[in-house]
Amino acid sequence: MQTVSIYAPVVDKLALVEEQLHELCQTDIADLDPLLDYALRSGGKRVRPALTLLASEFYEDDQKRSQIMAAAVELLHLATLIHDDTVDNAGMRRGKPTINKLYGNHVAVLLGDYLFATSATFVCDTGVIRVIRRFSETIMELASGQLIEFFTTFDPSKARRLYDERIYRKTASLFCTSAESGAVLSGAPEHQVQALRRYGYNVGMAFQIVDDLLDIQGDASEIGKPVGNDLLQGVLTLPTIMLMERYPEDNPIDRLFTSITDGGPDVDHLLQKSLDMINGSGIVPDCFAVIRDYCSEAAAALEELPDCPPRRSLLEMVDYIRERSR
Amino acid sequence: MQTVSIYAPVVDKLALVEEQLHELCQTDIADLDPLLDYALRSGGKRVRPALTLLASEFYEDDQKRSQIMAAAVELLHLATLIHDDTVDNAGMRRGKPTINKLYGNHVAVLLGDYLFATSATFVCDTGVIRVIRRFSETIMELASGQLIEFFTTFDPSKARRLYDERIYRKTASLFCTSAESGAVLSGAPEHQVQALRRYGYNVGMAFQIVDDLLDIQGDASEIGKPVGNDLLQGVLTLPTIMLMERYPEDNPIDRLFTSITDGGPDVDHLLQKSLDMINGSGIVPDCFAVIRDYCSEAAAALEELPDCPPRRSLLEMVDYIRERSR
Repeated sequence: MQTVSIYAPVVDKLALVEEQLHELCQTDIADLDPLLDYALRSGGKRVRPALTLLASEFYEDDQKRSQIMAAAVELLHLATLIHDDTVDNAGMRRGKPTINKLYGNHVAVLLGDYLFATSATFVCDTGVIRVIRRFSETIMELASGQLIEFFTTFDPSKARRLYDERIYRKTASLFCTSAESGAVLSGAPEHQVQALRRYGYNVGMAFQIVDDLLDIQGDASEIGKPVGNDLLQGVLTLPTIMLMERYPEDNPIDRLFTSITDGGPDVDHLLQKSLDMINGSGIVPDCFAVIRDYCSEAAAALEELPDCPPRRSLLEMVDYIRERSR
Repeated sequence: MQTVSIYAPVVDKLALVEEQLHELCQTDIADLDPLLDYALRSGGKRVRPALTLLASEFYEDDQKRSQIMAAAVELLHLATLIHDDTVDNAGMRRGKPTINKLYGNHVAVLLGDYLFATSATFVCDTGVIRVIRRFSETIMELASGQLIEFFTTFDPSKARRLYDERIYRKTASLFCTSAESGAVLSGAPEHQVQALRRYGYNVGMAFQIVDDLLDIQGDASEIGKPVGNDLLQGVLTLPTIMLMERYPEDNPIDRLFTSITDGGPDVDHLLQKSLDMINGSGIVPDCFAVIRDYCSEAAAALEELPDCPPRRSLLEMVDYIRERSR
């Protein structure tokens, strides 16, 4: 499935967002421009700005403001990727060397800060305090989601207890805000704003669980990082949590973690065993069932909105996100 | 000189700011609270929030908003310190281990992000788009100032050319914004807002040059980092730039930099020679002359404002900043 048909109602506006992002690469600091250019040409799918623009299509209050917002949510997303790669010491992202790999952690931290601040400055141009505040809160949620991830590494019971909170903060939060802000800026009535927010929440939760599955299933060249990367980092995701819950006495993850933290020799073997056990059990279909539930909730939220091309696109987006891992 | 008398007109409000900062340490993420507590009890002088509060004292529009702003500028300052220490790999700050030292770079980057975002969320509670936008721009300036510093390390001609721009962005920018925002939120007329902004700019520039001097003169226990630390990092400051300009053929800095970058054995010796040469020449008094000029401009800006205790405090603050390095 391609994003082309999904984005059809907003394709011209997305092109303007793209232009807006590239205008950022002309600063008055010559050394900064190539870095920005590299960071902004990341080759992402622009899912979040598309969500903002589609959410703003139901009313036509002031399309210019939704466009600014769309650029801001993408910038914010790119800033978080730069910091995430830096703290994870990741070398590749979408088949290209990361900023931290190419320019070092020093530049990566500061460039991320610069992009966070640029995104927040963009949002001010909407002139609407409600979305400006929500945007800053979202940055708090993203950072604290990553912190929760860090606090719960190698700790199965904590990881389980904080799982929903963590994936809401680190992923669903920005989907929520993207949809909600588009709706607010378009002048939608409050019940529709809330419906689009609910849509964003559910789509975002599904998106993260699909990501979790890709990590244990995908091939390395496709996802751009080694299979089982989360487990190697001690990050427990839905499929690995399910494995531990179902086989409390006989799962290889406890031993894998001990091997990783103690520098044991069996890491590769235990990782492969964990992945095989997840893929060979009923866990993957059960994760799909959870994803399906979130997707159904997202689709149900859209019933508050009139039937029209942007609503059909948002419905297609649900399918697109669900099918990413198939 | 103590800050006590300077802060007298706003001492109660500063205490409320302090309370507000500490309220932040009760989040719904148990693991986060001790980190926040450690970061916020940094023992700083709270110069920037005092500036915001003093600048807001000339008019009495809505003191609650200036107080929120004061907490926000301090939070922002603390966030930048955390990221600065992380990218500089600094182990100590004000006599205490840094966050990156205690908890690792991973936590330090994310905690800094969280505090940046918290400060920006605070500012939204003022409800005034002008100060909210200025605040985000300031974060851009702080990050780009640090990037300029990085781009100009070990490069004397670039460091000279970009010196004013760099110290404006990395330091004076937040002083400007602290003063300007206090004035805007108090309802001051525009010419007084601009006067307080000019005051903040000049005080901030002076503050940074004093910092540059402390780095080459202070004793390590007082400034909490090794003497000559800037030079060891390849950062060229006003006194070292002056040394290179005055003794283009016969200064030890070129050789010091070669030694540092090539891992040569003479680093300690060449560093000491550079520091001795600066301290033994007329460079220190010449730096003081530059500081004095900025301080005079700051004092002159205050002439736009009525004579009253907060104005006298702002004048004393100029003296306090100038005298830090004596």
